Amino acid sequence: MKRRASPGYSITARLSIDNRIGMFARIATVISKAGGDLGPVAILRVSKDTIVRDITIYARDDEHEDKIIKAIDNIKGVDVLSVMDRTLSSHEGGKIEIANKVPIKDCIDLSMVYTPGVARVCMQIYKNKEDIYNYTIKGNSVAIITDGTAVLGLGDIGPEAAMPVMEGKAMIFKEFAGINAFPIVLSTKDTEEIIATVKNIATPFGGINLEDISAPRCFEIEQRLQQELDIPVFHDDQHGTAVVILAALLNVSRLLKKELEGFKVVISGAGSAGIATAMILTEAGVKDIIICDTTGTIFEGRKKNMNPYKEKLSKITNPRRIKGGLSNAMKGADIFIGLSRPNLIGAEDVKKMSSEPVIFALSNPDPEIAPEIALKLARVVATGRSDYPNQINNMLGFPGIFRGLLDVRASSVNSAIKLAAANAIAYSIRDEQLSEDFIIPSVFQRKVIASVAYEVAKTARESGVARK
Amino acid sequence: MKRRASPGYSITARLSIDNRIGMFARIATVISKAGGDLGPVAILRVSKDTIVRDITIYARDDEHEDKIIKAIDNIKGVDVLSVMDRTLSSHEGGKIEIANKVPIKDCIDLSMVYTPGVARVCMQIYKNKEDIYNYTIKGNSVAIITDGTAVLGLGDIGPEAAMPVMEGKAMIFKEFAGINAFPIVLSTKDTEEIIATVKNIATPFGGINLEDISAPRCFEIEQRLQQELDIPVFHDDQHGTAVVILAALLNVSRLLKKELEGFKVVISGAGSAGIATAMILTEAGVKDIIICDTTGTIFEGRKKNMNPYKEKLSKITNPRRIKGGLSNAMKGADIFIGLSRPNLIGAEDVKKMSSEPVIFALSNPDPEIAPEIALKLARVVATGRSDYPNQINNMLGFPGIFRGLLDVRASSVNSAIKLAAANAIAYSIRDEQLSEDFIIPSVFQRKVIASVAYEVAKTARESGVARK
Repeated sequence: MKRRASPGYSITARLSIDNRIGMFARIATVISKAGGDLGPVAILRVSKDTIVRDITIYARDDEHEDKIIKAIDNIKGVDVLSVMDRTLSSHEGGKIEIANKVPIKDCIDLSMVYTPGVARVCMQIYKNKEDIYNYTIKGNSVAIITDGTAVLGLGDIGPEAAMPVMEGKAMIFKEFAGINAFPIVLSTKDTEEIIATVKNIATPFGGINLEDISAPRCFEIEQRLQQELDIPVFHDDQHGTAVVILAALLNVSRLLKKELEGFKVVISGAGSAGIATAMILTEAGVKDIIICDTTGTIFEGRKKNMNPYKEKLSKITNPRRIKGGLSNAMKGADIFIGLSRPNLIGAEDVKKMSSEPVIFALSNPDPEIAPEIALKLARVVATGRSDYPNQINNMLGFPGIFRGLLDVRASSVNSAIKLAAANAIAYSIRDEQLSEDFIIPSVFQRKVIASVAYEVAKTARESGVARK
Repeated sequence: MKRRASPGYSITARLSIDNRIGMFARIATVISKAGGDLGPVAILRVSKDTIVRDITIYARDDEHEDKIIKAIDNIKGVDVLSVMDRTLSSHEGGKIEIANKVPIKDCIDLSMVYTPGVARVCMQIYKNKEDIYNYTIKGNSVAIITDGTAVLGLGDIGPEAAMPVMEGKAMIFKEFAGINAFPIVLSTKDTEEIIATVKNIATPFGGINLEDISAPRCFEIEQRLQQELDIPVFHDDQHGTAVVILAALLNVSRLLKKELEGFKVVISGAGSAGIATAMILTEAGVKDIIICDTTGTIFEGRKKNMNPYKEKLSKITNPRRIKGGLSNAMKGADIFIGLSRPNLIGAEDVKKMSSEPVIFALSNPDPEIAPEIALKLARVVATGRSDYPNQINNMLGFPGIFRGLLDVRASSVNSAIKLAAANAIAYSIRDEQLSEDFIIPSVFQRKVIASVAYEVAKTARESGVARK
């Protein structure tokens, strides 16, 4: 399966083109033949002999960009004057900044926001610690914490290289939920050191978003931090993903008019997302879940390649004690949830499933099965990609979840809150809107996030973790 | 000495006033008699019987505010409807926020700033770590780090209560130098733990501003971090203060046409600012410095109340080996630099000094000697306050110093850079502008910061710590 051209890999080429009829069509044909998509086109200068144009081209990846540019440069009568990488440009100098809410124009402003006026604000908080929520950024700020060990599909690329993702995440927090999130990338991978560091720097934040920390360390880091801090700690790769998957599954249940409890679910992948998904589906009532890792199905008593988290899951999943590989597990399954790696299953696997197979192939950017194949065989197909219907996207979860938690000054996050968030996402689609191609809303339906925030805040209050 | 009323303690009172001639004058008189200053006045509603006005009043402190409001409430025909504390209001919800530099309007924007486009930016940095300066906020961001142990004159008030000051500092970084500074208040006071924590979270930042950490821990924390990190680490309470004091002293030297080398200087206070000031003055060429702490003058061989930093200073200061108290040290001194506590010296002490005494009484908000007394006896008087001439204000230093360091991607900060910053501040006043009342520029003369930044960047390059 070839990836599609994406604006994520877009370049703007400045071309000097002979001023003759048919030249632009020729360029467009060359781009198309090379597999690129044509984006916006602008004219810069026209003379009797030449036209200078800026042409934006969407490619599949870096190499593909080079290939397209070479093909254009080979056209007689076309000179490539310069090539601007639009994605790199949009990251130059970073994507976020600090802004002052009030200006400092003169000494009077200064004396209010800084000395001497600030002293009384300090003393107010000194006398009543809870006032830190009233007079500082804490009430609306989140730390995005990573050690750079499991970044996107790129793996352990380290804290420096993880920064662009964390800044992007901070942008999403702001754009979709109005939250001030700051990226803290850690230069340690040691579990205890990460825990100690995050505890030491937690005061300015009303919540901690753990991100892209590899399993199984991420489980202990999250649990310990949530025990030892009095603000919510949420590992998005686990619970954000799990919440949105549950939302999609709730809507599959509505669409197919089958109870969640009756689904036979196979999860491929026992990393952070796989384990959290198994947990939330169990909490939501699913009785028959089989998790597969690279060793095969996880069952009670398995000895090879286990850890305490898989051990725990082996006791509450796989009630039929299915052994063997993924292929074995797929027999008669209603739902396949892929959280593992590209091109893992094929048509023959889907054919083994029940009469109305549902495929969530969430490996990104390349799913566990090519959507084109899955779509022919399955009743419902969802991926992690924005260029197919039913995108399972964490962005439907975390902005609204943190918005709700911050709004009530929550001290922690719990299962009830996560289930409420999943329900809010699912029921943002009305019965009559539901279809095979629309089991999950778009992240650009902003009301979804507001509705998640509302339900999260309500559930935080009901479950006794709200301070406001 | 009574403090003056300040906008730092300002309230806006909403008053219902009988609609009769002379009522406003009566209110103004009451405020004035109570020692308050009248600020802006607005009319909200007028009826036949009453006028509702918002009156802003500047007071000296919290108690004074209460006293003034009571006095107003006692006026016949005046009702206090509500009182808004303007300083507290200006801090509500925090004073800074995160802003996105580019909007996320649709899937195309998203695919450039987040997945899939962000992956290639990550890989670019993974291949070339230095690119973190090009594609993330690192190149223009500073961490403001404190443990809340020496906040303003308030002492060890803890990390929560320190937050408003650190946010204020972040505002100054942005407003005066365009730098994105984020406040990290630490919930540990342990030297080793602070060092480990800051090292773990340093990656997103191009510089570290240590703030309000008590002596002597602050010395080791700064030294160790500067050794172990590859970005500048600058403890503003030490070096920011020292740089601005040296700038003022350079201008005293120009004004009095006396060489710096010939000055007899007494420094009261052997905390972070006192020690750093003694160091920078020594580096600038001052030969005769006596430092006094609560035990008395520091001299070589003193046993009581020493630490390694005082020990070091005892070897390079106090060449005449003056023993005894501050009073003893003041005899024949040219310059007194107070970095200790309010009302420490009196007229008799100033009279002991040389023929043209210079007094820098920098304890804040209440100086070591009442400026009114000092002004009668000394040739030049400087304080830390904005309501007297010659305000010695760190804000003249740190924004420009960090601007310059970031501009050249400096790996550390050194003495040459600090001396260059002091010179830039001093020589932003031209010879013909210098006077007893103008030895130091205002922080609102923005060109001072630009000039500091320029000289710092130049010196960083010359001293081999610039990476760009």
